[in-house]
Amino acid sequence: MQPDQHSRPTGRTKSRRLPRAVRERQILDAAVEVFAERGFHPASMDEISETAGISKPMIYAYLGSKDELFLECLRREAARLIDAIGEAVDPELGPDEQLWRGLQQFFAYVNEHRTSWAVLHRQASSQGEPFSQELATFRSRAMGLISTLLARATVDSQTPMTSEQLEPFASALVGACESLIDWWIEHPEHTADGMAMRVMNLTWMGFGDLIAGRTWSPAEPS
Amino acid sequence: MQPDQHSRPTGRTKSRRLPRAVRERQILDAAVEVFAERGFHPASMDEISETAGISKPMIYAYLGSKDELFLECLRREAARLIDAIGEAVDPELGPDEQLWRGLQQFFAYVNEHRTSWAVLHRQASSQGEPFSQELATFRSRAMGLISTLLARATVDSQTPMTSEQLEPFASALVGACESLIDWWIEHPEHTADGMAMRVMNLTWMGFGDLIAGRTWSPAEPS
Repeated sequence: MQPDQHSRPTGRTKSRRLPRAVRERQILDAAVEVFAERGFHPASMDEISETAGISKPMIYAYLGSKDELFLECLRREAARLIDAIGEAVDPELGPDEQLWRGLQQFFAYVNEHRTSWAVLHRQASSQGEPFSQELATFRSRAMGLISTLLARATVDSQTPMTSEQLEPFASALVGACESLIDWWIEHPEHTADGMAMRVMNLTWMGFGDLIAGRTWSPAEPS
Repeated sequence: MQPDQHSRPTGRTKSRRLPRAVRERQILDAAVEVFAERGFHPASMDEISETAGISKPMIYAYLGSKDELFLECLRREAARLIDAIGEAVDPELGPDEQLWRGLQQFFAYVNEHRTSWAVLHRQASSQGEPFSQELATFRSRAMGLISTLLARATVDSQTPMTSEQLEPFASALVGACESLIDWWIEHPEHTADGMAMRVMNLTWMGFGDLIAGRTWSPAEPS
């Protein structure tokens, strides 16, 4: 979503010198910084206004209340992450390579924006509606992309699977990545590539077996 | 934790007929039901009192404030879940069978207590401190058990790993299960065993490859 597509009042004044899109970006940059550092509740519009160097009335006019501002931060950060992953993944590559590149980019992005995305994610999941709904939408989108990719990987196998059948696996993969980020925050000495490789080794090798028709089964009761 | 080990005031009265442990269990049963149905904030001590058939003053005397009561619900449900899994897992079995039995029991327990555990878990993660800390402690305990199990599985392999090295994998496994439960709530037609088997196929087959020394690696850049 581009900031200049908003339908909120523009709040134009005679002193306005910068295009609206630039101001909105400045406001959102400041808001992400303040929300990530303070948390949603303790964050104040005063501090966001100071950090952005833009008056509070102009922030309200451009991006609305603190709730709306936080929601817009979530949307922008989520869209940026998905865009970054989309750019890293070449659809001509094999599906395992696509997943690998996507995971590399995912962990690299989170690493570069540790103080923003990872914390915003945590805030979004802990502040209830409408933020948790926004997070759910974002997770669904990620899961849809992953299950489509996995389904494509099974097309030529002995057991082709639909993206619908692969949804639970995509859900597990997303949950695994989220949980790994929590672990990573406590163990920051590991690289983004190292984290992505762990996910490949844990899940893709599992998928490799599934695709080759090798499934695990419990031993016969003795 | 047994309810009768609490050190809070006993609030004994002459009208008391049931042992304290029984009353506490009744209160906690009612509280779990009400918290799970209403959510933490909307849940009222009045409704918990009515559901339990025990007066509010007695609830406060036995288990403390609403916050303390919720925390006690989390602890009891977490302890019950871990106990149930511990009973299902025979340490004489191979590690993959142990993981399978543990996962079966995990999903079966969540299935039987959908209205309690799954919702309490969600409440605990969304209500901030001290509940999210309690949840973190519980997750750490689960991860410790899993990483120890996985480490044991690698002892005789070409690449033995320590439980510390396997911590991120355990973290990913826990996150995968949590995410799968969210998916399962939306797709209740699947069985607990079906859910556990998905985790085995996604992760254990991955681990099987790791243990056999088969690791995934990206193709050479062309």
